[in-house]
Amino acid sequence: MENFQYYTPTKVVFGKGTEDLTGELVKAQGCRKVLVHYGSGSVVRSGLLDRIFRSLDAAGIDYISLGGVVPNPRLSLVYEGIDLCKKEKVDFILAVGGGSVIDSAKAIGYGMTNDGDVWDFYDRKRQAQACLPIGTVLTISAAGSEMSNSSVITKEDGWLKRGYSSDYSRPKFAVMDPVLTMTLPKYQTASGCVDIMMHTMERYFNQSDNMELTDGISENLIRTVMKNARILMTEPENYNARAEVMWAGSLSHNGLTECGTDGGDWSSHQLEHELGGMFDVAHGAGLAAVWGSWARYVMDARPERFAQFAVNVMGVDPAKDDAGTALKGIEAMEDFYRSIDMPVCIRDMGIEVTEDQLNELADKCSHFGGRTLGVVKKLTRDDMYQIYKNARG
Amino acid sequence: MENFQYYTPTKVVFGKGTEDLTGELVKAQGCRKVLVHYGSGSVVRSGLLDRIFRSLDAAGIDYISLGGVVPNPRLSLVYEGIDLCKKEKVDFILAVGGGSVIDSAKAIGYGMTNDGDVWDFYDRKRQAQACLPIGTVLTISAAGSEMSNSSVITKEDGWLKRGYSSDYSRPKFAVMDPVLTMTLPKYQTASGCVDIMMHTMERYFNQSDNMELTDGISENLIRTVMKNARILMTEPENYNARAEVMWAGSLSHNGLTECGTDGGDWSSHQLEHELGGMFDVAHGAGLAAVWGSWARYVMDARPERFAQFAVNVMGVDPAKDDAGTALKGIEAMEDFYRSIDMPVCIRDMGIEVTEDQLNELADKCSHFGGRTLGVVKKLTRDDMYQIYKNARG
Repeated sequence: MENFQYYTPTKVVFGKGTEDLTGELVKAQGCRKVLVHYGSGSVVRSGLLDRIFRSLDAAGIDYISLGGVVPNPRLSLVYEGIDLCKKEKVDFILAVGGGSVIDSAKAIGYGMTNDGDVWDFYDRKRQAQACLPIGTVLTISAAGSEMSNSSVITKEDGWLKRGYSSDYSRPKFAVMDPVLTMTLPKYQTASGCVDIMMHTMERYFNQSDNMELTDGISENLIRTVMKNARILMTEPENYNARAEVMWAGSLSHNGLTECGTDGGDWSSHQLEHELGGMFDVAHGAGLAAVWGSWARYVMDARPERFAQFAVNVMGVDPAKDDAGTALKGIEAMEDFYRSIDMPVCIRDMGIEVTEDQLNELADKCSHFGGRTLGVVKKLTRDDMYQIYKNARG
Repeated sequence: MENFQYYTPTKVVFGKGTEDLTGELVKAQGCRKVLVHYGSGSVVRSGLLDRIFRSLDAAGIDYISLGGVVPNPRLSLVYEGIDLCKKEKVDFILAVGGGSVIDSAKAIGYGMTNDGDVWDFYDRKRQAQACLPIGTVLTISAAGSEMSNSSVITKEDGWLKRGYSSDYSRPKFAVMDPVLTMTLPKYQTASGCVDIMMHTMERYFNQSDNMELTDGISENLIRTVMKNARILMTEPENYNARAEVMWAGSLSHNGLTECGTDGGDWSSHQLEHELGGMFDVAHGAGLAAVWGSWARYVMDARPERFAQFAVNVMGVDPAKDDAGTALKGIEAMEDFYRSIDMPVCIRDMGIEVTEDQLNELADKCSHFGGRTLGVVKKLTRDDMYQIYKNARG
């Protein structure tokens, strides 16, 4: 078992109607002026934004707002947010939305508390020394950004999608009302479920000795999301299913499922980041599209782990050897993805990737040969090319 | 599923050699003067206290120390600690030890930041408004106080053992090196494992709709502790087993296993508190001694929950009805307790309880008829008497 740190300071306020507590939660932070950050018109149309404004008004909070965050949130809006917050002397950011809005808020928070270009952090040029405090009202179960230390931003110049992690950015509080996720379209719900599962699967596929407690939590979490994702395909307003998925989303990415491990593989996420940057696909769908290709490519490096996954998570009967069991598990996961209308290859998303694009994806993902990926099996630029090619469909 | 809050701000630093990071962790808290609080001579004899002092010296931390905490920590030492800390202008408490030391530190912390008698909080007369920041170096896996919001103190006048909970007391950091627990005697190790299991079992036996995620975490946690407790009876220096138990101790009492529930029953803890106050028994052993009696007394109020426990945790084959399955599960748990030399009745601890003492226990536990216990089944003073009587052995 590896040494580890676990730090999840976010206060979770979970359940029906909790968004009406937002004003008091912000007030308890002792801030002077708040930026309310949000995305598309859906939080406006649903009336949620008005309810949040009323809650802030009732608590006597001074605030401004900035909408327009899109999936795969853009660096240009982050710059705009930083300028606005500096001008208005904002000292707290309230993100109302899903992972994209929270990630955008974190990036603005970094920009407000560190000199120089905020993209430097995402470009791995230097480390942030602080972040403005952030609170969240979550409307999409997926990214886990409401408790995580990570944020992913896309730079339009070159369509580079890059993540940056630091504990400074862990939100102070997360308001999580599963009711707010009931109106999400089926595709977005399914994509979110895959994202949640993958945050634990990335950690689960590692090169560490097993920690039974962590493995048990992880296996149960993935099974629970699968079960409830299936329910939500036919019962989108099932409160308990929405709640299980929402809470799983936070636990899957707050660090709990990596305790005692080397942190996990994360190749699929990096491979998907380039896909998302190039084609703007839904993150979870992109993950589903590349995972099977990745898993088949690397499983020989740790077949016993893939076999454990197959039995304990996917419930398959063991084959005559670990490799056989592992393969059955991968196929079972792809069957699950299909069952919730998720892709199992890139073509399933309606994208025909050209040979040139395969090379461009591998070049970008390897930072033009400058980095390898993964811990289950270390992937070079050519390995990445092959995984993209096998995932093309 | 119930609405819930989850708040675990404690930074966990887990693994071999992490105690040498203590000085830096204290320094990061920005405090001026530290009280190092500890218990018996074991942390002195093992050299741990010296290592902690060296770590504090290396970080340039000014500190004083106060030892002498005993199991079922006493109010008189808490008062002494408060006086000392006021005189020395202490602004941070470092607890080096197990739950008793941490609980004593929390009580001193309350006394330092609130006017009046600190016992008022434990006596439910008023609520604390603050607590001095606390850090911990854990040496015993049991109480979970290193991440929890609770503290239990015994008032010598009347031997009243009372708990008090508030988020103010959640430690800022917890240093957890499983190696430090390897020298614990077998009885204390087993008692600690029961305490850990019971923190989740108290929450598991509730009157809420199941939350699959929480149930799965809870069932896995209890199974993991049972498996590793058995290993530790013959391999006390098995690092992985010590680590599984240690991490389970924190997760079992930091709130994770109650998310989405009504918070759980907690009758067994209250029943044991009076036993511990009267006879000074090891907390975990006391819990094992009363649990079977409690479980048989209340199982009819929610047989399906006890049946789920029997199958998913104890691995028993279902009987012809839930009540039968439930009873098999209770018996299996008692068999487990016996397998690690834990008591299943009070007599097993070498204590002969008189009829007068049974009445005194029930009187104290019910606050002389002034309160009921439990949510699985609400227990009156006479119910408590009967459970104590059935637990007498």
